[in-house]
Amino acid sequence: MQMGMIGLGRMGANMVRRLIRDGHSCVVHNRSHGPVEQMVSEGAIGSENLDDFLSKLDSPRVVWLMVPAAAVGQQIDILETRLDAGDIVIDGGNSWYKDDIVRARRLGKKGIHYLDVGTSGGVWGLERGYCLMIGGNDGAVKHINPLFATLAPGTGDIERTAGREGERSTSELGYLHCGPAGAGHFVKMVHNGIEYGLMAAYAEGFNILKHAGIGKQSQDSDAETSPLRNPEEYQYDIDLPEVAELWRRGSVISSWLLDLTATALRDDAELGDFSGQVSDSGEGRWTSIAAIEIGAPAPLLTTALYNRFSSRGEADFADKILSAMRFQFGGHHEKGKG
Amino acid sequence: MQMGMIGLGRMGANMVRRLIRDGHSCVVHNRSHGPVEQMVSEGAIGSENLDDFLSKLDSPRVVWLMVPAAAVGQQIDILETRLDAGDIVIDGGNSWYKDDIVRARRLGKKGIHYLDVGTSGGVWGLERGYCLMIGGNDGAVKHINPLFATLAPGTGDIERTAGREGERSTSELGYLHCGPAGAGHFVKMVHNGIEYGLMAAYAEGFNILKHAGIGKQSQDSDAETSPLRNPEEYQYDIDLPEVAELWRRGSVISSWLLDLTATALRDDAELGDFSGQVSDSGEGRWTSIAAIEIGAPAPLLTTALYNRFSSRGEADFADKILSAMRFQFGGHHEKGKG
Amino acid sequence: MQMGMIGLGRMGANMVRRLIRDGHSCVVHNRSHGPVEQMVSEGAIGSENLDDFLSKLDSPRVVWLMVPAAAVGQQIDILETRLDAGDIVIDGGNSWYKDDIVRARRLGKKGIHYLDVGTSGGVWGLERGYCLMIGGNDGAVKHINPLFATLAPGTGDIERTAGREGERSTSELGYLHCGPAGAGHFVKMVHNGIEYGLMAAYAEGFNILKHAGIGKQSQDSDAETSPLRNPEEYQYDIDLPEVAELWRRGSVISSWLLDLTATALRDDAELGDFSGQVSDSGEGRWTSIAAIEIGAPAPLLTTALYNRFSSRGEADFADKILSAMRFQFGGHHEKGKG
Amino acid sequence: MQMGMIGLGRMGANMVRRLIRDGHSCVVHNRSHGPVEQMVSEGAIGSENLDDFLSKLDSPRVVWLMVPAAAVGQQIDILETRLDAGDIVIDGGNSWYKDDIVRARRLGKKGIHYLDVGTSGGVWGLERGYCLMIGGNDGAVKHINPLFATLAPGTGDIERTAGREGERSTSELGYLHCGPAGAGHFVKMVHNGIEYGLMAAYAEGFNILKHAGIGKQSQDSDAETSPLRNPEEYQYDIDLPEVAELWRRGSVISSWLLDLTATALRDDAELGDFSGQVSDSGEGRWTSIAAIEIGAPAPLLTTALYNRFSSRGEADFADKILSAMRFQFGGHHEKGKG
Repeated sequence: MQMGMIGLGRMGANMVRRLIRDGHSCVVHNRSHGPVEQMVSEGAIGSENLDDFLSKLDSPRVVWLMVPAAAVGQQIDILETRLDAGDIVIDGGNSWYKDDIVRARRLGKKGIHYLDVGTSGGVWGLERGYCLMIGGNDGAVKHINPLFATLAPGTGDIERTAGREGERSTSELGYLHCGPAGAGHFVKMVHNGIEYGLMAAYAEGFNILKHAGIGKQSQDSDAETSPLRNPEEYQYDIDLPEVAELWRRGSVISSWLLDLTATALRDDAELGDFSGQVSDSGEGRWTSIAAIEIGAPAPLLTTALYNRFSSRGEADFADKILSAMRFQFGGHHEKGKG
Repeated sequence: MQMGMIGLGRMGANMVRRLIRDGHSCVVHNRSHGPVEQMVSEGAIGSENLDDFLSKLDSPRVVWLMVPAAAVGQQIDILETRLDAGDIVIDGGNSWYKDDIVRARRLGKKGIHYLDVGTSGGVWGLERGYCLMIGGNDGAVKHINPLFATLAPGTGDIERTAGREGERSTSELGYLHCGPAGAGHFVKMVHNGIEYGLMAAYAEGFNILKHAGIGKQSQDSDAETSPLRNPEEYQYDIDLPEVAELWRRGSVISSWLLDLTATALRDDAELGDFSGQVSDSGEGRWTSIAAIEIGAPAPLLTTALYNRFSSRGEADFADKILSAMRFQFGGHHEKGKG
Repeated sequence: MQMGMIGLGRMGANMVRRLIRDGHSCVVHNRSHGPVEQMVSEGAIGSENLDDFLSKLDSPRVVWLMVPAAAVGQQIDILETRLDAGDIVIDGGNSWYKDDIVRARRLGKKGIHYLDVGTSGGVWGLERGYCLMIGGNDGAVKHINPLFATLAPGTGDIERTAGREGERSTSELGYLHCGPAGAGHFVKMVHNGIEYGLMAAYAEGFNILKHAGIGKQSQDSDAETSPLRNPEEYQYDIDLPEVAELWRRGSVISSWLLDLTATALRDDAELGDFSGQVSDSGEGRWTSIAAIEIGAPAPLLTTALYNRFSSRGEADFADKILSAMRFQFGGHHEKGKG
Repeated sequence: MQMGMIGLGRMGANMVRRLIRDGHSCVVHNRSHGPVEQMVSEGAIGSENLDDFLSKLDSPRVVWLMVPAAAVGQQIDILETRLDAGDIVIDGGNSWYKDDIVRARRLGKKGIHYLDVGTSGGVWGLERGYCLMIGGNDGAVKHINPLFATLAPGTGDIERTAGREGERSTSELGYLHCGPAGAGHFVKMVHNGIEYGLMAAYAEGFNILKHAGIGKQSQDSDAETSPLRNPEEYQYDIDLPEVAELWRRGSVISSWLLDLTATALRDDAELGDFSGQVSDSGEGRWTSIAAIEIGAPAPLLTTALYNRFSSRGEADFADKILSAMRFQFGGHHEKGKG
């Protein structure tokens, strides 16, 4: 079927490619024109501007937005005035589900359907397919089912879950209508919250392995530092790239994130290209805020988020408070200080 | 090649099966005789008692122990007096790596080789192969390489890590010599520590999804409870089994543990067979102790461990202290109390 | 000076008492009439209804609200239509500072001053004085300074901070103008966030002491439970009430919360009147939300909050997920199950 | 009564001063001679060497050790050969209670009494008194009761706990016999564990206040950073020294640690003398290890410990793992990188 894509960044462009490959027709629009030309060369239908874009779409129009979260609101405002009743607009980015609820209600008043689609898969989506978490009204979701079916991974070579029989549900193909407006981004938000926790669990584990030879270092023994009691218990040089590779096979903790870690460590066991200042985007924060608002404890997910803040120096003043207290009650100077 | 197995529980028996299937010869021994007979019926060589078992093994003997952690020490004590220089004893259970260091040194004085092998794969190992983390001296590890190669998963259909070329390392086949005595169980310990973190991350996420409809419940608004500010933001009925299934495909958080979660939720979305009193075994504790001893922060892994304690009621007195304080400073009674 | 108080619950009534004692004049209003009569008998000026209340206040009126957080909004809506330019309304409850910003702006358009005052001290405030955290515009804060000075604790017998000399700042008397609208409740919110952390730190410590004799219990040793390695290291019967009392004197961790804990444990070392289902109110949640929004890591404060959720059973489904996973990969049944 | 003190560091010297002031007789010994001369000039009885020291003590000798934790073991080894049955040796430092159990048993075989005394109070002890947590056998503890009574703070001006009547218990005077060997250091260990938690709770809170003006900064809005949604909600310049001072009076979170924080912030609101690399000593680690071993959840206390590790850069590799994963799945470069 036909779809219009606004936003030809890495994600948007690859989604268009995957749709075209599977025989769909894509009209494309982008702030700058270069990416439009590129996609036209790959089989898409280009557009000069938004009016042109909209005019090239059959009614009811299907407009997929793949723009930065901060730009979605403005884009929706414009589309609200240009689309017609029955048209479908899809926010495929990383919006806060609370915004979806408001937007869907607003557009709904004009008869425009608004779907929120959380999309996982990153740069691997073109090849691997996109895992799609969909929110919005039934009719619109069903109408564009062929697009979802193409974008999603399909069954691939993943073993069927025991107990599932007969016709495959869409979840088994990698897409799911999760509920009304916001439900797609809500599920995607939690997905990313979990992702933070998984990543941190691996990171902590590899960091322990990295320290496994600490007994070889000479140990200070002053009043300020707890010396290692039995240095002979920490004399290991663990080969991290090999361990990551090993755990990919037959272990309980095999996962796609571990596959990626194995690749990264294979490239450079010291990860020297990285400073360790870890960014965070909205979903991790929103997951924790949701957990707080609904009273569902999420200590790991939130601690993972906080540790990203700390990695960027945001705990520094808190740490100074600690050192200042220690100096006040014990006369303890920081190591290397007076 | 030939191997002797002591301990024919679920793990030991399945390992023998996997070895026999691949043409190895297995002499077996067990505290009770029933499992021995069973394994003999499947092609193993039985033994009447430990002497008989040891006499049926060619020199240098290869003795694999697959007994509960609490029984390993005693078993090693006995074997120390019966084995000969050059023999190899393997602890395939879940011992603390610190014990391995002591045992390897002790046996080493008599020329007996001691290997510690952390084994992941659980009840799935027979079919999926066992991920093997090996510690001990080089010669002994190399000597029994054929056994490791059989027990391990091999390459399977797992995609090769980008950047790896040429002959496959053993890690690519699912086994790895991690270092000297204790290194195998050290790596296995950290593996399990990570496992705790991963499991808790998924659990927290699914629990948030489970609470996503909390806005439908009527909200108390008293001084003791924070009412939900915008109940309309939490009106979702998320289908957890479908979401678990969905995330298996193309998402960033796909993993073997998620596969298992999908199976469990498919069986019963409410998990009504489980009380939620979560056990923990030694490795999770030892991982946290190691993190503390070497000064490598592991807040997620340890919090995951602590939450298992709490699930079993071990935080109850702490919680009473909190309620008692609240009553003292604010006259706050617990809800439902006077 | 004169002040009007709306809301004669425990907090409001005691504040009126403290003001009257110090020679101020208080006009009082309450939803039900009983508390009004009570306060009149203690020297306050009663009122029949809101109109009567407002008519008894000199211009510019000073109206202090001491009503539940959920009722503040409605009360402000009403007052907005009844107060005159120059009047001052004070929200002395536990509102979210974000609401203060909106309310102050709205009332400000009519020339009405809005102050937000976070109040700590609980049931002890009458005797001990109230610690007051004040937000709003300078002029209004200065105008009612005599009221703050009376409500606050004053210097008491608290030792002066080293380095402070000359005239005492208001902070040394127990009240502080923290900044513009919302600043008072913001500081109070963080105060409560810290309170959650402090409380949990004591609770965890006492819980460890409570478990110090666990080595006396017989230990299971099965595959599912990690046995205590050296039971002889945990043979203590620590007398918790005595330890709490001890730490009040000369220790680094002496505090008012510890004083209260000592009282509670003195009453009943087992805290048998408490179930350990710990409530939480808005401030603890808002503190964590603020930490997330501004990117300042607060893992202890948020974990303390989450543990209150867990104490009320909100982690139960997460725990079931863990047990279900363990059953899937290891065939582990929960203890006491088949 | 008479006491011998080995170790005239800050703690040991001040304890001797406090004892002499109260009329006790102190024989002193130190590795270097300067401190001995100093204490002699303040009224102590000096000694040339250990033999001289021991010969100047009446039988049964009372020997208090106030030496670094790492030196205690050696000192005890020496004393074991020089002391007589009935003599009492006190370890007043920060030993691991597990060592006390072993030492007490060993010395006990020779009839020498070993007491372990956890001492809180730091540099303030001379003036404020030392909070003493005592482990060991009854007879020895009673024998030197006069020394404990002098070293401890006494009742001071601390209000008596409600419900306590009649003669004061020793806990009300600031010292307590907590149980058999190790109990003193066990309680002191948990005290320090709690201390870590309390300190971190304050530190997190002040750090949030420090970030309260973050809305004034210009906000990036790129795919990698979550922009502040409502910058107008974070426009505060909170005066931290004043808030610390304020909370000392009438608030729920008043404490001695807050007093110290107020002093530190009064000296320098920016705490510019501190780098924020926070040391940790044994007790914090041992508290967490104890919590793990006995299965009593202590997520705040352990997270506080881990955050000290992180403040010293020990999470850096973990953070690099996170950035590397993000790069692998999303092509996300760290900010400021390509």
